[in-house]
Amino acid sequence: MQLQSLSLRYDGRLSLLDQQLLPDQELWIDASAPDAMIAAIVALKVRGAPLIGVAAALCVRHAAESGASATELLGVAARLRAARPTAVNLMWAMDHLIHTIEAADTETAARHAVVDAATRIFEDDVRRCARMAELGAAQIETGASILTHCNTGGLATAGVGTALGAIVHAHLQGKRVHVWVDETRPLLQGGRLTTWELSRLGVPHTLITDSMAPLLMRDGRVQRVMVGADRIAQNGDFANKVGTYGLAVQAQVHGVPFDVVAPWSTVDLSCPDGAAIPIEARGAAEVRGVKGSFGEVRWAPADTEVYNPAFDVTPARLVGSWVLDTGVIHAHMRVDGALPVPPGATDTVSPPTPLPTPPRPRS
Amino acid sequence: MQLQSLSLRYDGRLSLLDQQLLPDQELWIDASAPDAMIAAIVALKVRGAPLIGVAAALCVRHAAESGASATELLGVAARLRAARPTAVNLMWAMDHLIHTIEAADTETAARHAVVDAATRIFEDDVRRCARMAELGAAQIETGASILTHCNTGGLATAGVGTALGAIVHAHLQGKRVHVWVDETRPLLQGGRLTTWELSRLGVPHTLITDSMAPLLMRDGRVQRVMVGADRIAQNGDFANKVGTYGLAVQAQVHGVPFDVVAPWSTVDLSCPDGAAIPIEARGAAEVRGVKGSFGEVRWAPADTEVYNPAFDVTPARLVGSWVLDTGVIHAHMRVDGALPVPPGATDTVSPPTPLPTPPRPRS
Repeated sequence: MQLQSLSLRYDGRLSLLDQQLLPDQELWIDASAPDAMIAAIVALKVRGAPLIGVAAALCVRHAAESGASATELLGVAARLRAARPTAVNLMWAMDHLIHTIEAADTETAARHAVVDAATRIFEDDVRRCARMAELGAAQIETGASILTHCNTGGLATAGVGTALGAIVHAHLQGKRVHVWVDETRPLLQGGRLTTWELSRLGVPHTLITDSMAPLLMRDGRVQRVMVGADRIAQNGDFANKVGTYGLAVQAQVHGVPFDVVAPWSTVDLSCPDGAAIPIEARGAAEVRGVKGSFGEVRWAPADTEVYNPAFDVTPARLVGSWVLDTGVIHAHMRVDGALPVPPGATDTVSPPTPLPTPPRPRS
Repeated sequence: MQLQSLSLRYDGRLSLLDQQLLPDQELWIDASAPDAMIAAIVALKVRGAPLIGVAAALCVRHAAESGASATELLGVAARLRAARPTAVNLMWAMDHLIHTIEAADTETAARHAVVDAATRIFEDDVRRCARMAELGAAQIETGASILTHCNTGGLATAGVGTALGAIVHAHLQGKRVHVWVDETRPLLQGGRLTTWELSRLGVPHTLITDSMAPLLMRDGRVQRVMVGADRIAQNGDFANKVGTYGLAVQAQVHGVPFDVVAPWSTVDLSCPDGAAIPIEARGAAEVRGVKGSFGEVRWAPADTEVYNPAFDVTPARLVGSWVLDTGVIHAHMRVDGALPVPPGATDTVSPPTPLPTPPRPRS
């Protein structure tokens, strides 16, 4: 199975696209062995919260298929879990596998259970993305120009992604879409990764700086804004990459429909509204310059004070639709100011339901 | 006379701060000789439309003080004029000096006329900036946090600047201001230059990416937005560095006062409204990465399509006050949807520096 960022062979061997080298180099690295996978996670060669969890689960699965004992499997899962302590999906996936191993009666049962559970984590992500892509694409008019922020495609998930997955799906349906790609300062996920994905998939797109989006909306050159979400509160407020709030305000002022595309697992029912979502402030170096496999420069004075929130919170009143894998919730469908909970949603095993601790990890 | 970006000695020798090396190096270069000044203009070591015109005028003045003939002075002015063909202030200043030289009866009279005219061009810029700083600072409340975009300080003018000049003036008045500095992608004038100026002048400030401004406004952390203008139409619409329009929309939505600070010479009475202001589209490389004396990196795929408008146009309805050297025009003071023309302003020679036409009596 060959996906955008992950390749799984029939024998269980696992390759990852080294995202640190994009867009100039496409290098696939074998990450079947736990040491290789841990190194890839630590070096951010694999990024995107859902993708890290899936990749680590498939690595434990490979160990099980190679005949590792239950004790060995527990050790592998524990070591992978510690590779990036802030990655909630990773921790959830590893805890789920550890629990599965511990519940098994025999060595053979443990190996089988791990293979089943890891495969399910993987397939769940792919299936959820496919469902969001289908529902999101249905929102998109033929010939539309869609503006997006950050990277929400196949590089962040095992599947086709969230907002970008929907846009790509519309393209594949022949809807002749065009994408305005916000570069997404400071970490430039739009400029580095979204451009690369769209180019690879043949979707027409144009890169802009984040400050140009309002001008495009005023000129009538944006028909829809679609973004992902890191966490959605019970009332529909949501946290996403910084810059999203400003886009939502501009979309409302200019009468442009604004959609959030995310899995139901992003909805945190323990979080009543956006005010309860803590915002992580990151380091100053990211704003004083840029750094990546492409090189490193600093243009601001070395001691310039910086404010660098990783996310912002967009209030529900600015959202037109929440496109979830469980279905589309339009603004008028909220009940008593809350998102309606889909039947059976609370039973889900999907990662990472109600987030235990403060800010979500960022890729 | 030692200014932020230009130093003029009693003997007429002229030094320029090499702006290409900022913020990490502060190198002053002697640009008294025409060749040196031309090289500095071509290499963008001196930038800012008003500053280029003033610096070139002072260079011709130095030649006159060194005893150059009228023919030689005409040659110097013509060569400087050609150094940057798109710089309107430069062309205006050189044409003014050429006209002055041609109108003189004797060699001595020509030299004296050049010294007077060049000094006046310089002093006019300084005086206009001082007046804007005074009027702009009066708008600013004690303890305010002010958000600004691009670089509008002493690095762009011979004087203290426009919007940034006003903010610095409020600081010097003890108003305890704090400045939010938009980095201003793609060319990063905020991150590179505004931070440096504010640091040098001891004004508290914090650097952010352009996408973070809306979040700060929503959190009540911005009390005023002050920006410069490249061209103001008769009705008050104005063109400025791209990103300004988005800021103006956000300011209105969040109830934050929004001021434009610019000399009256920026008002183009031949331009009825913003739709008549042409917008320059610049090259793709500026958005695919960054380049400067700090180095060069590219993070987007090399062939990514880019949209890169240098400016955007903000409609008059989003402006609270136009702070001009001729006085402050508040929104309610517009007459029949047009900015009121200050007495005597229409007598001025148009673009872009309104130097009074009647020659000043010689001392």
